[in-house]
Amino acid sequence: MIHDFEPTTFHLSIGSHEPVLRVASGDTIRTWCVDSGGFGPEGEDLTDGGNPMTGPFYVEDAKSGDTLAVRLDRVRPNRSRGVSGARIAPNVLDPMFIPEYGSVDQREVWWTLDLDRRSAKLEDPPAGLASLGEVKLDPMVGCFGVAPDRGQAISTATSGPHGGNMDYRGFREGVTVFFPVAAEGALFHIGDGHALQGDGEIVGTGIEVSMDVEVTLEVVKKRIRWPRADDSTFVMAVGNARPLDQAVQHATTELVTLLHEDYGLDFPAVSTLLGQFIRYDVGNVFDPAYTMVAKVEKALVERL
Amino acid sequence: MIHDFEPTTFHLSIGSHEPVLRVASGDTIRTWCVDSGGFGPEGEDLTDGGNPMTGPFYVEDAKSGDTLAVRLDRVRPNRSRGVSGARIAPNVLDPMFIPEYGSVDQREVWWTLDLDRRSAKLEDPPAGLASLGEVKLDPMVGCFGVAPDRGQAISTATSGPHGGNMDYRGFREGVTVFFPVAAEGALFHIGDGHALQGDGEIVGTGIEVSMDVEVTLEVVKKRIRWPRADDSTFVMAVGNARPLDQAVQHATTELVTLLHEDYGLDFPAVSTLLGQFIRYDVGNVFDPAYTMVAKVEKALVERL
Amino acid sequence: MIHDFEPTTFHLSIGSHEPVLRVASGDTIRTWCVDSGGFGPEGEDLTDGGNPMTGPFYVEDAKSGDTLAVRLDRVRPNRSRGVSGARIAPNVLDPMFIPEYGSVDQREVWWTLDLDRRSAKLEDPPAGLASLGEVKLDPMVGCFGVAPDRGQAISTATSGPHGGNMDYRGFREGVTVFFPVAAEGALFHIGDGHALQGDGEIVGTGIEVSMDVEVTLEVVKKRIRWPRADDSTFVMAVGNARPLDQAVQHATTELVTLLHEDYGLDFPAVSTLLGQFIRYDVGNVFDPAYTMVAKVEKALVERL
Amino acid sequence: MIHDFEPTTFHLSIGSHEPVLRVASGDTIRTWCVDSGGFGPEGEDLTDGGNPMTGPFYVEDAKSGDTLAVRLDRVRPNRSRGVSGARIAPNVLDPMFIPEYGSVDQREVWWTLDLDRRSAKLEDPPAGLASLGEVKLDPMVGCFGVAPDRGQAISTATSGPHGGNMDYRGFREGVTVFFPVAAEGALFHIGDGHALQGDGEIVGTGIEVSMDVEVTLEVVKKRIRWPRADDSTFVMAVGNARPLDQAVQHATTELVTLLHEDYGLDFPAVSTLLGQFIRYDVGNVFDPAYTMVAKVEKALVERL
Repeated sequence: MIHDFEPTTFHLSIGSHEPVLRVASGDTIRTWCVDSGGFGPEGEDLTDGGNPMTGPFYVEDAKSGDTLAVRLDRVRPNRSRGVSGARIAPNVLDPMFIPEYGSVDQREVWWTLDLDRRSAKLEDPPAGLASLGEVKLDPMVGCFGVAPDRGQAISTATSGPHGGNMDYRGFREGVTVFFPVAAEGALFHIGDGHALQGDGEIVGTGIEVSMDVEVTLEVVKKRIRWPRADDSTFVMAVGNARPLDQAVQHATTELVTLLHEDYGLDFPAVSTLLGQFIRYDVGNVFDPAYTMVAKVEKALVERL
Repeated sequence: MIHDFEPTTFHLSIGSHEPVLRVASGDTIRTWCVDSGGFGPEGEDLTDGGNPMTGPFYVEDAKSGDTLAVRLDRVRPNRSRGVSGARIAPNVLDPMFIPEYGSVDQREVWWTLDLDRRSAKLEDPPAGLASLGEVKLDPMVGCFGVAPDRGQAISTATSGPHGGNMDYRGFREGVTVFFPVAAEGALFHIGDGHALQGDGEIVGTGIEVSMDVEVTLEVVKKRIRWPRADDSTFVMAVGNARPLDQAVQHATTELVTLLHEDYGLDFPAVSTLLGQFIRYDVGNVFDPAYTMVAKVEKALVERL
Repeated sequence: MIHDFEPTTFHLSIGSHEPVLRVASGDTIRTWCVDSGGFGPEGEDLTDGGNPMTGPFYVEDAKSGDTLAVRLDRVRPNRSRGVSGARIAPNVLDPMFIPEYGSVDQREVWWTLDLDRRSAKLEDPPAGLASLGEVKLDPMVGCFGVAPDRGQAISTATSGPHGGNMDYRGFREGVTVFFPVAAEGALFHIGDGHALQGDGEIVGTGIEVSMDVEVTLEVVKKRIRWPRADDSTFVMAVGNARPLDQAVQHATTELVTLLHEDYGLDFPAVSTLLGQFIRYDVGNVFDPAYTMVAKVEKALVERL
Repeated sequence: MIHDFEPTTFHLSIGSHEPVLRVASGDTIRTWCVDSGGFGPEGEDLTDGGNPMTGPFYVEDAKSGDTLAVRLDRVRPNRSRGVSGARIAPNVLDPMFIPEYGSVDQREVWWTLDLDRRSAKLEDPPAGLASLGEVKLDPMVGCFGVAPDRGQAISTATSGPHGGNMDYRGFREGVTVFFPVAAEGALFHIGDGHALQGDGEIVGTGIEVSMDVEVTLEVVKKRIRWPRADDSTFVMAVGNARPLDQAVQHATTELVTLLHEDYGLDFPAVSTLLGQFIRYDVGNVFDPAYTMVAKVEKALVERL
C-alpha cells in the first residue's frame, strides 16, 4: 500500500514521539522533508533548524529486537536552490593550523539547482571558483533512523546505533538501509536532504535542500546491532561513534557478524575474506559522533 | 639514468642509515624487495621479518625542506606464492566482541599467484572459502619513505610525516608519491610489497610477497608537511597518526594547504570545493599510527 | 525550605519527563535513590536496572541559559550490602591482551557495609583478597544532571554537557556541582550511588548501593557550557566525551572560560597559571562518553 | 660505585647512540642536564633545543628483555631562572574555541627561582598574576628512558614503551622508574628538567631549567612491557600513546600484569581490587604521544 503523507510537525530529535502515521510492514510512504534549516519546497521557513525530521512513522508489528528495512525508492530535491557551508570545521583541521585558517567571513554559499539536468551551479562563487561551472548532483539522505532504546530521544545533530545524522553519500536512491528496532512500531524518522555532499560533510553541510522522498518500510524478524545497508554492489555495515577508530570497530564488527550469521562463514573465513576485500567509506566527521561504513562486494560474497 | 641495484642489506627502521647507492635527481632505480617477513623471490629467508627495507638511496641535492617525488614506475610481485593473515586485528573490533571472536587457530593462509594472469587463488581455503576461486591482483607498496628529522630512525611497523608503513591500496604502479625531505640526500627506503590488500590492512597483512620495483626519484624545491600523491585521477594528501581522527586532521590540512599554495585558492574557495568534493580513503588501521588519505579529483581542480 | 520526597517512579534517561516535585530556588530536597540495578534500601527490586533516576525535580525560575547549583548536603548509603563488578572492562585493556584476560567467571562480588564505621568488607573474597580486610567508604553520586536541550532524553548509561553518568569520585558530600540549564525548570535527576569507587569505574561499577541524599538546588543567572564544581579546595570543570582527549578539551576549555569570566584573567594569565598548576582527574572511562575533570586550587586563584 | 660525569654532547633522540659512559648495575651517576632549550647552568647556549639528552649510559649486563631500574636520587634545578610557555596548546582546547582563544602575543614568561627556599616568582607577571607571589617548586624529570627496539632512535619530543618525553609530575626525587630494556647496555638517557609543572604540560613546558641529577641504575632480570614506577606510596604503570584512551589501555594492562605477576593475584582479584582502588594520573597531553599513569596504593597491595 502507498501512503501519501503531508508533514506539518517536525522533530529535532529521534525518539519515542507521537507517530504521525501508522503503516503496515511492506507499505510505501510518499512524503517530503524540509531542509536542515527548516525551510520547505518554496524556501518558506517552516520550523526551527537543526535537521528537523518528518515522522515518526509507526510500522505495525515492529518490536524491539527486530530490524526495519528502509528502501529509499525516491530521493529528489524539490526546489531550485540549495545552500552549503564555506568553512571547513575546525575539528578536521590540525589544531595548530586553525588560528592560521582563522575565521572565514563568507560562511555559506548558495547553489542554483537544475532539477531536470540534475546539476548545480554556484550563484556567487567565492574568488577562484568562478570557473567551476556546472556540477552533477548526487542526492542523498543525511539523517534518518528509528527511535532508540530506553525511551531516549536523541538529537538529530548526532548519530548512534539507531541511525541519525550519518551523512553518508551512499544513502542515495535505490539503497536499502536496515535499522535495529528498539521501540514498538520502530518509529521511523527522515530528513536532512543533500543534493550533493563530499565525504565527511566537513563544512558541516552538503548542498542543503528540501526533498521529496518515497520509502518502503518492511519489518524483518532478525536482530542487528548497528545499521546495515545494501545497494546493487555492496553489503555494508555502519558504525557511529567518536573517535573514528571506534566507528571502525562498530562497523567492522557488524560486518563480521553479518558474514558470520547471514552467510555462515566462520571467523577464519571472514578474516581471510575481509582482510583482502573490505572497503571503508567515511560518513560524517563533523558531528559529535562520526560515521564509518565497512563494506564488501556482493559479487564476491555470493560466490561463497 | 637507470640504476640496477641488488640489495644485500635490509633495515627494520627508516632513518639516517648508510646509503646503499647515490643517484641524481631524475634517476630511476630498478631493484627488488623482500616480503614483510624477510623472504625473497625464491622464498628464501634473507633477513629478519617486520617490513625490511631496501635502501636507503641517497638523492643528490635533496636537502631538508625539499620534497622527494617518487614515481612508482613498476610494482610487480616476483614469485608465485604469497601469505596473508587469517585473523582480524583486535583493535578494529568492538572490545566486547573480542572474547567471542576469540583466538583463531589458523593464523595465516597461503595464496598461489599467477603472475601472467595477475590473479591469486587460496591454496588451502578456510572452510567456506573453497568457492572463492580466482581473484584479481592489485599490487602495491606497503611501506616506503624518507629519513625523518632529528636523526631519528623509526620502525617500519609504523608511519609518520616521513611516510613509512602506510599500507594504502592507492600506492600502486603509475602513482607518484611526494615525501617531505628531512635529511640530506632524502634517504629513500622501500619494501613490504602486497599483491592485494583490503582497506585498513585489518588482518595485519595484504597478500605478502617479494616484488620487483622500479622508481624514479626527483627532488622538488618546495616544502610539504605530509606525504602527497598524484595518480591520473586524484591529487591526494596523507595523514599518519592515531586516532584516525588525527590522521583526518593531518590529511585534510595538507590537502587544504596544497590547494591554497599550488592552486592559489583562498580558504573560502577551498572550503566550498572540498566540502562537496573531498574523498577520504582509509590506509592502515592496524599499525601504531593509522593512515588516512584525503583527495579531490584533478579534473575538478583543473577547471579552476 | 526543606522537602521530604519519597520516590515511586524512576527514569532510565535524563530528559524532559514529568516533574515529580516543584521546588523554589534555594530549597533543599531530602530523598533517596535506588542502586544502579534498581534495588532499594531493603534490597528490594523496585525498578529496571541501568542507573534509574529519582526525579526530575522542577526548580522554579530556572530557564535555559541559567545554571543550576546542586549542593550535595548529604550522600549516605542506606543499607548494609553493596555489589561491585569483578571484571575489568575490555575497553580499558590493550586489545591484544583481552583474549589472554579472557572471560572471568566471577562477574560480581558482594561487600558488607558497616554504616557506622563507614567501612566495607568483601563477603566472599576472590582468591588472594582474603586478607584485604576492612576498607574505608567514600560515598559519591555516580549519575546526576539536568534535562538536555532539544527535548532530548539521554540514557543514564552515558553523559554529556547536561551531566549524567560521570562516575567521578569527587562528587561526594559537601561538594557543589553546577549544571547548564537547557529546559524550563532545569529538571534535576539523581541516582547511581557508590559507597566507594576507583578512578575510571573500570569494572563498570563502584560498590553499588542505594542511598539517602539531601541536595540544595539554586538557580544562578549565568551561562556555563559544561558542568563545574567547587569543593573546599578546588574549582573544577568537567568534560564528558570520547575519546578522553575530547573530554580533556571540554574540561580545559570550560576551566579557561571560568577563570576568564569569573576571575577576569586574560588568556596569557590563564595559560601561565594553568600551565603550572592545573590538575586532571579521571571520571568514568567505561561509558560511551568518558569524563575528565580539570581543576585548580582555590587558594591559588583567590590570591589573584 | 659513584661516577661523576660531565656531559659535552647531547642527543635529540633516544636511541642506540654511542655510549658516553659504561657503568655496572648498581652504580650511581652524578651528572647534569641542559634545559629543554639546550641552555646550561649559567644560561649558556650549549646545544640545539628540543629536549637534548645527557647520555646514553651503558649499563653492563643489561640485555634486551631485562628491566632497568632508575632511582632518582637527586633532581635539583641548578640555576636561578626558568622559563615557561604562556599559551595553552590548541590540542587541549575545543576546536571551536581556538579561534576565540586566538594567538597570544606573550609566548613565554620567566621565573626567578630561589633554590634555597625551593620556590619561584614570576619576573614580569602577565596582567592579573602580579599577586600570585611565591610558589613552591616540585622538581621533576620530563624526559628520560632507554634505547628502543629495532635500532630505532625516537625523537625526545615524544614517548613510547621506552619512556621518553612523558612529563609526569610524579617522576621526582626519590622515585624509582623501571624501563623495559630493548638494546644491549640499556643505553639510558636523561634531560628536560622542570622546576614545576602542572598536569598535562598543557603550555608545552613546565618551568624549564637545567638541573643536577643523580641516578642509580640497576639491571633487573625480569621483563616488563611499559615503564613502571614506585614511590613510597604507590606502585605505578605508565602508558604512552595517543589517544589518551590508548594510554589508559597500556597503563591499565601493565598494572594488571604487575599485580598478576609480581603479587600472584588472578584476574578476578586484580579486577576487584583495581575496580575500587585504582588511581589515574595524567602526564603529558601535549606531545604526539600522551602519557597516563595507573597506580594503586602499596599499603593496600602489601596487605595481600
